[in-house]
Amino acid sequence: MFDITLGLVGVGKIVRDQHLPAIAETPGCRLRATADPHASLAEVPAYADMAAMLDAHPEIEAVAICTPTDLRHAQARLALSRGKHVLLEKPPGATLSEVEDLIGVANQQGVTLFAAWHSRFAPGVAEARQWLAERRIERVEIVWKEDVRVWHPGQAWIWQPGGMGVFDPGINALSIATEILPQPFFLRRARLLVPSNCQTPIAAELSFSDPEGATIGAEFDFRQSGPPTWDIHVDTDAGSLSLTQGGCRLSIAGQRVREEAEREYVGLYARFAELIASGRREVDVAPLRHVADAFMYGQRDAGEAFFE
Amino acid sequence: MFDITLGLVGVGKIVRDQHLPAIAETPGCRLRATADPHASLAEVPAYADMAAMLDAHPEIEAVAICTPTDLRHAQARLALSRGKHVLLEKPPGATLSEVEDLIGVANQQGVTLFAAWHSRFAPGVAEARQWLAERRIERVEIVWKEDVRVWHPGQAWIWQPGGMGVFDPGINALSIATEILPQPFFLRRARLLVPSNCQTPIAAELSFSDPEGATIGAEFDFRQSGPPTWDIHVDTDAGSLSLTQGGCRLSIAGQRVREEAEREYVGLYARFAELIASGRREVDVAPLRHVADAFMYGQRDAGEAFFE
Repeated sequence: MFDITLGLVGVGKIVRDQHLPAIAETPGCRLRATADPHASLAEVPAYADMAAMLDAHPEIEAVAICTPTDLRHAQARLALSRGKHVLLEKPPGATLSEVEDLIGVANQQGVTLFAAWHSRFAPGVAEARQWLAERRIERVEIVWKEDVRVWHPGQAWIWQPGGMGVFDPGINALSIATEILPQPFFLRRARLLVPSNCQTPIAAELSFSDPEGATIGAEFDFRQSGPPTWDIHVDTDAGSLSLTQGGCRLSIAGQRVREEAEREYVGLYARFAELIASGRREVDVAPLRHVADAFMYGQRDAGEAFFE
Repeated sequence: MFDITLGLVGVGKIVRDQHLPAIAETPGCRLRATADPHASLAEVPAYADMAAMLDAHPEIEAVAICTPTDLRHAQARLALSRGKHVLLEKPPGATLSEVEDLIGVANQQGVTLFAAWHSRFAPGVAEARQWLAERRIERVEIVWKEDVRVWHPGQAWIWQPGGMGVFDPGINALSIATEILPQPFFLRRARLLVPSNCQTPIAAELSFSDPEGATIGAEFDFRQSGPPTWDIHVDTDAGSLSLTQGGCRLSIAGQRVREEAEREYVGLYARFAELIASGRREVDVAPLRHVADAFMYGQRDAGEAFFE
């Protein structure tokens, strides 16, 4: 059972929508304080910064870091160096180099570092992984499309350097694909469509292959109207698998085998608990590495200006 | 002593200019054959592709892969899977994910994989590293500027996706900096200037910091006229160090301590030999990771069109 005293660093939308309900459902997880210069929660001691929170509450054993990406490295480094276990919201950093550094610090300190990819805890993911583990993959089609105006209203940072544009949701697809596919895969071509007034892509087409010759295509698009499409289709030597609705619905060989409401963050906190209890770390940078690869290796085409 | 039978994969300018003289100077290193669809060497058996070369010469124990970057992964994977030791020219791949895959294959096969960063074998690098190891770094200034028309004539690929632009030489600076500085460092800001008719930057300004608060600035520029500037200056708590002329000249506290002609590739083949003899691998992706970080996290500004 989870028995740990937690501090939350950053109190934004994702914390209110996802972390708080999940923490409330996790037995033995006690939220002790928050650190945020601009926000706080009713009935929880609040501090403007993490160091002040840790000074005031030495009983805090673990922190969940949910601040803007470019603040995370310094905060995580400080927390780890003070012997705290750390959960990093996705993506685990603004750059790969800083995540690599955190792995080193966590190893040195002997504490848990958990790079949390919430989409990996969607209802159908574990079973999809298990079923695919014994198949030969032939073709994968990833379609991840949503209306940026609906899903990211007012999030101007998403268009700025480091904001990742359509890779902000796209990295969720990549976090599932890297989890369920039995082989690693590598980028072969990428095309990024970047609005003329933005730094980051509004759409991307990616083409990967795996060591056994499977082709993996991904289409990310922020220009969807109507409901989102968050689907992964896999053709194998033993029939096909579809993981749709962001991982909530799993079909194998045309048969619906699972359909559940998502409880991703409950699973995520359960994993954090397991990792702490067993003294392990889990930092898979593969999804972020694929994004960096696409920015480094992809072709950028200028598209029409985007106005929210 | 090196005693190994070598195949060369890719016979281009870097092979003729650097690899062949270095191999000739390496006792016990026997060049057995080459693989290249378009080029060959006098008096060395030549094959159009690597598989044909390995089929015809099972005595080849190691290959040096010097083909265009986006061919290297498939070739290296095949060579490793056939039990050959592999030297990869810089950069070790077109993407980080494919390099990661090669590390896995090399570990599985128990053979040597060497991601060669030739600039690390410049005359002053080892001594700079040693001297800096015991100092506290305060400020680093990297200036890497050359005239692209002089140093990369007709290399249109450099402006295409994956060609890296000014990071093609800049990664040499990063390979030295990551070698000599005692702490890792992380990107804080980057600005990439991309000609309006190109995919990759002609100039870049990068700003890093290290865990102890040192600031590391880098200026890469392809628009230099006259002689190149390939300099790294380091201010420490015990005086300053300058590694200039691409690592050929080392000054400490204003005193010239070393100035030698470069023999980078001789050192590089000696290291490959040591690695094979001791059954080790050396694959430091840090320089390529910094480049990927800069592409992912940097601001891109459009500059005037470039015409060679």
